[in-house]
Amino acid sequence: MLDSLPSFARLEAELGKLPGIGRKTAARLAFYLLRTTENDVEALASALLEMRRNVSFCQRCYHIAEGSLCQVCKSSTREQHCLCIVQEPQDLLAIERSHSYSGLYHVLHGALSPLDGVGPDDLKIPQLLRRLEHEPIEEIILATNFTVEGEATALYLAKLCREKGIQVTRLAHGIPSGSDLEYIDAGTVQQAVAGRRAF
Amino acid sequence: MLDSLPSFARLEAELGKLPGIGRKTAARLAFYLLRTTENDVEALASALLEMRRNVSFCQRCYHIAEGSLCQVCKSSTREQHCLCIVQEPQDLLAIERSHSYSGLYHVLHGALSPLDGVGPDDLKIPQLLRRLEHEPIEEIILATNFTVEGEATALYLAKLCREKGIQVTRLAHGIPSGSDLEYIDAGTVQQAVAGRRAF
Repeated sequence: MLDSLPSFARLEAELGKLPGIGRKTAARLAFYLLRTTENDVEALASALLEMRRNVSFCQRCYHIAEGSLCQVCKSSTREQHCLCIVQEPQDLLAIERSHSYSGLYHVLHGALSPLDGVGPDDLKIPQLLRRLEHEPIEEIILATNFTVEGEATALYLAKLCREKGIQVTRLAHGIPSGSDLEYIDAGTVQQAVAGRRAF
Repeated sequence: MLDSLPSFARLEAELGKLPGIGRKTAARLAFYLLRTTENDVEALASALLEMRRNVSFCQRCYHIAEGSLCQVCKSSTREQHCLCIVQEPQDLLAIERSHSYSGLYHVLHGALSPLDGVGPDDLKIPQLLRRLEHEPIEEIILATNFTVEGEATALYLAKLCREKGIQVTRLAHGIPSGSDLEYIDAGTVQQAVAGRRAF
């Protein structure tokens, strides 16, 4: 039925390539875009092209940046001796939103996953090692995810960094704010008990 | 934190205007679009612009069309005496997918809803009345939704069409295929009992 609507079918197909957008959602979005103002559609198309033209990755920490350095690396007020290592730019943004950290970052763009063929050279780990040689880093905070791959990556990096005599810490593992103990998985409770602190 | 990323923030904002796409989904899509190939992003942007340039509505039935008439109206094999009235182009596509109807359509682009200020002149009802004067329509199938607004629209149109001496039918109301009676709402069961047929 869409054979006679090649442009509509093509937009549906392109929208359907986006993650989490299935056939039905793609159709819903295409119908919305057909009814909205032409200005809105042009604004979306130009935002897409402009983003790809202007946004790339920071040459120092690999966070997203417009220009050669990201906002954190450009800032003169950030603590230069502390480096927080995260998997993705989104993780960096989550830590920034918590307003709890004022040091620098390094974004790995993934986590080690030998089964998927992801080794240290597929991540920004060689670039991290170069930074550790040239920058006065004294503490490294490992903020990779608390998943199998994230934990493996943290262990791997901890070993590398300790060999260089840098202090290594890991984000605290425990019960999240606002949780009922009853509904927390056993592994997390176990970590929270093992990591209990004076009160 | 996105202050220094105006292009990225702008794309997030534009994506966030789409229906069913919230702040988090918009961010996820923007990060995906940052990582995918430049070709994919250009293909999406050009599909958006091309769809808006090429797709509009059929001048006869108001289904979506590339050109002045839609595929149904252009076809020489469709039954010209039967007209199925639907609320939206998506409803027309659903009936076409069922391969159960070979007549013409008329798309209202909405349903009567006095509380929202939607009256007959806000829908394609004047255009429908003009078609009934000029086309040899003998039967009208009311296929508006089975909601309060859809039922009200069906009642309104049934009255208009009967005055013109046209036979009016409504899609059957009842239990959908594959359902457990236990889980069907009482209103639907009531309609199914009232509409029971010889077996």
